Amino acid sequence: MSDYPAVKAALRAQHIETPSWAFGNSGTRFKVFQQEGVPRDAYEKIADAAKVHEFTGVAPSVAVHIPWDTVDDYAELARYATERGVAIGAVNPNVFQDDDYRLGSVCNPDPVVRTKALTHLLDCVDIMDATGSRDLSIWLADGLNYPGQDSIADRQGRLEEALAAVHDRLGEHQRMLLEYKFFEPAFYATDVPDWGTSYAHCVELGDKAEVLVDTGHHAPGTNIEFIVAFLLRKRRLGGFHFNSRFYADDDLMVGAADPYQLFRIMVEIVLGGGLDPNSGVAFMLDQCHNIEPKIPALIRSVMNVQEATAKALLVDATALGKAQREGDVLGANGVLVDAFSTDVRPLLAELREEQGLDPDPLAAYRRSGYAERIRNERVGGAAAGWGA
Amino acid sequence: MSDYPAVKAALRAQHIETPSWAFGNSGTRFKVFQQEGVPRDAYEKIADAAKVHEFTGVAPSVAVHIPWDTVDDYAELARYATERGVAIGAVNPNVFQDDDYRLGSVCNPDPVVRTKALTHLLDCVDIMDATGSRDLSIWLADGLNYPGQDSIADRQGRLEEALAAVHDRLGEHQRMLLEYKFFEPAFYATDVPDWGTSYAHCVELGDKAEVLVDTGHHAPGTNIEFIVAFLLRKRRLGGFHFNSRFYADDDLMVGAADPYQLFRIMVEIVLGGGLDPNSGVAFMLDQCHNIEPKIPALIRSVMNVQEATAKALLVDATALGKAQREGDVLGANGVLVDAFSTDVRPLLAELREEQGLDPDPLAAYRRSGYAERIRNERVGGAAAGWGA
Amino acid sequence: MSDYPAVKAALRAQHIETPSWAFGNSGTRFKVFQQEGVPRDAYEKIADAAKVHEFTGVAPSVAVHIPWDTVDDYAELARYATERGVAIGAVNPNVFQDDDYRLGSVCNPDPVVRTKALTHLLDCVDIMDATGSRDLSIWLADGLNYPGQDSIADRQGRLEEALAAVHDRLGEHQRMLLEYKFFEPAFYATDVPDWGTSYAHCVELGDKAEVLVDTGHHAPGTNIEFIVAFLLRKRRLGGFHFNSRFYADDDLMVGAADPYQLFRIMVEIVLGGGLDPNSGVAFMLDQCHNIEPKIPALIRSVMNVQEATAKALLVDATALGKAQREGDVLGANGVLVDAFSTDVRPLLAELREEQGLDPDPLAAYRRSGYAERIRNERVGGAAAGWGA
Amino acid sequence: MSDYPAVKAALRAQHIETPSWAFGNSGTRFKVFQQEGVPRDAYEKIADAAKVHEFTGVAPSVAVHIPWDTVDDYAELARYATERGVAIGAVNPNVFQDDDYRLGSVCNPDPVVRTKALTHLLDCVDIMDATGSRDLSIWLADGLNYPGQDSIADRQGRLEEALAAVHDRLGEHQRMLLEYKFFEPAFYATDVPDWGTSYAHCVELGDKAEVLVDTGHHAPGTNIEFIVAFLLRKRRLGGFHFNSRFYADDDLMVGAADPYQLFRIMVEIVLGGGLDPNSGVAFMLDQCHNIEPKIPALIRSVMNVQEATAKALLVDATALGKAQREGDVLGANGVLVDAFSTDVRPLLAELREEQGLDPDPLAAYRRSGYAERIRNERVGGAAAGWGA
Repeated sequence: MSDYPAVKAALRAQHIETPSWAFGNSGTRFKVFQQEGVPRDAYEKIADAAKVHEFTGVAPSVAVHIPWDTVDDYAELARYATERGVAIGAVNPNVFQDDDYRLGSVCNPDPVVRTKALTHLLDCVDIMDATGSRDLSIWLADGLNYPGQDSIADRQGRLEEALAAVHDRLGEHQRMLLEYKFFEPAFYATDVPDWGTSYAHCVELGDKAEVLVDTGHHAPGTNIEFIVAFLLRKRRLGGFHFNSRFYADDDLMVGAADPYQLFRIMVEIVLGGGLDPNSGVAFMLDQCHNIEPKIPALIRSVMNVQEATAKALLVDATALGKAQREGDVLGANGVLVDAFSTDVRPLLAELREEQGLDPDPLAAYRRSGYAERIRNERVGGAAAGWGA
Repeated sequence: MSDYPAVKAALRAQHIETPSWAFGNSGTRFKVFQQEGVPRDAYEKIADAAKVHEFTGVAPSVAVHIPWDTVDDYAELARYATERGVAIGAVNPNVFQDDDYRLGSVCNPDPVVRTKALTHLLDCVDIMDATGSRDLSIWLADGLNYPGQDSIADRQGRLEEALAAVHDRLGEHQRMLLEYKFFEPAFYATDVPDWGTSYAHCVELGDKAEVLVDTGHHAPGTNIEFIVAFLLRKRRLGGFHFNSRFYADDDLMVGAADPYQLFRIMVEIVLGGGLDPNSGVAFMLDQCHNIEPKIPALIRSVMNVQEATAKALLVDATALGKAQREGDVLGANGVLVDAFSTDVRPLLAELREEQGLDPDPLAAYRRSGYAERIRNERVGGAAAGWGA
Repeated sequence: MSDYPAVKAALRAQHIETPSWAFGNSGTRFKVFQQEGVPRDAYEKIADAAKVHEFTGVAPSVAVHIPWDTVDDYAELARYATERGVAIGAVNPNVFQDDDYRLGSVCNPDPVVRTKALTHLLDCVDIMDATGSRDLSIWLADGLNYPGQDSIADRQGRLEEALAAVHDRLGEHQRMLLEYKFFEPAFYATDVPDWGTSYAHCVELGDKAEVLVDTGHHAPGTNIEFIVAFLLRKRRLGGFHFNSRFYADDDLMVGAADPYQLFRIMVEIVLGGGLDPNSGVAFMLDQCHNIEPKIPALIRSVMNVQEATAKALLVDATALGKAQREGDVLGANGVLVDAFSTDVRPLLAELREEQGLDPDPLAAYRRSGYAERIRNERVGGAAAGWGA
Repeated sequence: MSDYPAVKAALRAQHIETPSWAFGNSGTRFKVFQQEGVPRDAYEKIADAAKVHEFTGVAPSVAVHIPWDTVDDYAELARYATERGVAIGAVNPNVFQDDDYRLGSVCNPDPVVRTKALTHLLDCVDIMDATGSRDLSIWLADGLNYPGQDSIADRQGRLEEALAAVHDRLGEHQRMLLEYKFFEPAFYATDVPDWGTSYAHCVELGDKAEVLVDTGHHAPGTNIEFIVAFLLRKRRLGGFHFNSRFYADDDLMVGAADPYQLFRIMVEIVLGGGLDPNSGVAFMLDQCHNIEPKIPALIRSVMNVQEATAKALLVDATALGKAQREGDVLGANGVLVDAFSTDVRPLLAELREEQGLDPDPLAAYRRSGYAERIRNERVGGAAAGWGA
């Protein structure tokens, strides 16, 4: 497969961002299992993210979560990251973990809470200024548990107002990505439940607002690649939070549940021009490694996105278009299936070696001794987790 | 309950449109069971629809489906309806039952088929001119059964083009209602799968395009009342195709599966001003009576919408707003639950008697002998069904 | 409605068990919101449960969760409960909150962990001996997050073995209720995912094993009343964990999401003889009150079960059977709908007054000052929650 | 890959049965699109099935549907099949397409209809005697559209009775496979809705009753491989009706929607001994080719099952078991993923060549001219379809 220079060039250009929080402990409402060697602050999370990049070569940035990653000096944090070969990526404001937010953040019926939440969002733009981040990833846990609990329409008005204030505050090279989620933690209605809601707000907000697609945030059976194709065509696809699911928002490793779906998403990305760095599509992971070790799980996840991308790049677009125009259902489908059936692991191994990397990132990480080192060094202190 | 003049006035003003096709035979892919007395042409369907109005008093119009209801002279058909006390309502173009439409209608890769489909849509506007109909209800069966079968993005382009041509053709007092559907008959991707797609097209099309919500066309778990509230607030809710479902697009009698959901939808309608005749929200039924007799099923369905509306009108909006503002979750929910728990059948019986109707429409229909009459008279000829 | 003596007698005989854990704080994986006045130990939980019974008259027992409700002397705890007018009901072993249980409890690949888990189950039977409890409610969080993680078949073997050991240990008047759950916390495979698995194990175990139906633990669209009817017919319905859901295992107040479904379940119970105290069907709540106050939420939930039961008792079984035998689809359905449409609140108010209770339990609770008292008294100490 | 003798031997031994009805026209309730060259009777269907076997080498039998495949002399039909190199496989009774069956077949409230349905089931065993078929595949469309329509419990009793009569009638080497289905055509309750119901009946019936798993007949999110593993372990897995789905019972080509799920199912089959011909697990297709040509679609489907089986056979069971016992979540999952990522097309091409077949069955079929021949020859007469 050494004769795929365009495929390899595209793969080399792809950046997959890791999330700082995935290096900390996570769990379900039933239990957060503790792991050894887990980071205790933002610096240690960045150190771990740098390891993922060191072995994969395509994960050169790490998203932060505020206040989980609060530090005194964000410029210093950015420098620390740079020294380790990575950059600070998207800033993710957290407006769901104070007791104040019991009934919502910017959609809360109480104006005092709304102001508090909006202030936090705006503070996060300050942090972006300090870290040089381009993207503000907004996920709101706002919603209702019971019918009648609050006015759905009034909440949309409050949402509109807050988002407009954030949009106004953004600098010239900054964007806001508005994430949607079907349900959880709200169990009756969510204030941004689907891509339609996010898209409608973005269109009204202006050019700096784009939709963020979390692959785990859809109703059962939703065709995500349709949404991707639609948004790309309308130039409103800001990026992805990748993970995978069998049931709800399971936050498993991307590609672990339905690799063919991930491939189909990447096919739309490739065909719609979303791999072009100028398209502005951000490929970010957003996962929870509840029972598996975090760093290898993230390495595997980065590799899964790469494999899906490689297969998507192998789709014979000419043959596909011809079969589609001729109404050849089996033929057109067969073009996709052929690409998916291809084993791209040799191609990716070759690509890594060309980049001076070990062809097998997981084995290289295991051999590196990093896991043992952090297990020994990170003793004492509070392990980072979703609540810290 | 005689002291609810405002509730009764609102109920008297509500119009619920019946669909001509629900009077004919329908079924699943496995079997269409034949019933006796089923209409054989558009005239007989209108006669049956007039009976539903005669006994309920709130179903004064009937939607037609073209070509199922094709006649030589639509103005005459409209006069026939008027004579029986009803009007012809929405016109529903059918672009999914010719062998040509195997790969879609206006989204078909073949431009010849696209032109044929568009021509049919435009012909239906001619029919609207003749019948005086306001609404063109567009449901497209377009979609894909297999990944790769056709370009999702290209199909959106073709869709845009066709819808724009229809929008241009509409007269001053005419509208197009764009229906969306999660799946079926397409089993991989549908070209208008959700409200977001429909809404985005409507906003781009212009003021005469609004979203049509079929209550059976959503992914499992979708909060329909959120969509209703959102669209009402944006003045893009064109109306409903009511029916109910436990699983997919089951097309059972509205209110038969989840009467509390129907109530919650009507609460959003009431609170959002959608009962005001000037709001332009059309309340239409779209059902299949596969195993139950059609006319009583439609009478029951009209009554179910009325009961849900009556309960929604009983919601104490002042108490609700107060509890919501105070963050009183149980109190606010309790206001809704109280209204839903109320038995509104006496109120509706009273209302009917005030209108000179029998308080029990189903019993009155049974006593009328109409069922026996059509069973005897409608012998010979081909019973109307989905395919004719 | 004073002329419903049989209905009232049945309602008076119904017992609805509250869960001790629902009085403590709960939440989602994102946040546990703190409430004031929450109990700090098993005694305070029982005191709260006694209040629910005091105002409703039909909640005379409370289920405990071990180790959350661990005390030194269970006989004393039982006496404390008796003094407050309630009994200790089912014992719920918790084998999912130690770090050991990361890969499961009795299905864990590690025999040491399996033994630990089984020992805890057996210890809970000792507690039952001390408290006089009849039922051991077994819910296992066991399952897999990733395909291949463990052998599904081997895990069934381990499960069989542990359940047999527990079954053997049960005393003459004791039972084990085996709960099933579709997913969560396991996100790929659950070791007892559905009623079929639970039923198959119960049949093989013997007469003391019955199926426990948690109304929130099913795949989307599952017809729960079918399961209830099937199990009742086979005399394997041990009881319910009631709650309600819109999406996953939302654990909202029972009846809050789909009151018609709850009614249909109770119709099967009534028609299948499950209200007869000798049937052994246990009506238990299992809910999370994340954002609403706990005691009023439980009072409301008890009332919701009562209302659904009352409506089910109003079903005209004779008319229903006749319509069913005649194949009268609309008529048979109408019998159910009529009962559901009835406002049973006056009947229940009357019943409460006959029992010397306030007709409005929620208002009476509010007036009682108990909420203020516990808020003032329960200061300091650690509020009970899912983790304690 | 020439060094996989055991894998190849297992693949050579696998038999995949095609369904006669998939060669005829099918569709949705909205439209059955007509295709040219479609068979007009049972003989022509068998001729087409023989072609699928001719090019794949692993599809040596064809299931029939009665009365769709009614002929005067079944022994002669069997001889015709043998002459073409195939055998008649399972017999599928159809008890859902007479108007009598509007309210069900063996569960119908009317005893006359029940007798008629049972008689048809028994007649199908006569046909099995004539054709030498081993399996009676029972799928019942029985169920309810509305709550209350009939007694769920009574219907279980009627079902029990009919199944027992069929079981009694079976010869020594015959079996009944009881299929379950989540919903459709019934939209409220289905009389055999899930594997638990089917399994419970089979266990009570006796040794000749086994569960038939149709991969499209589950609630959203159901883990099918769990069911497969459970039934194999209990020796009650009779076989499969393979197809694939994105939403409901879409009946798309097997492997077209989620090839990783199909692989996981085959992994359970391989690990549980289900590939052993003595296990009695029947691999049958049950699909609808609504818009694609039927014979190539069936060839592709057979190939998809083969590819999934080949990948499952490549799973390193020793490494898998080791990782599982060690609790190595990523390692164990990685063993599965490695096998799935392998491109098995070269192995299968090699296998076909060793068997004297063309390595590319689809291309060979295209070149054969058979499609053109049947298009020219099969003119006039009524094309076979679901209704004929």
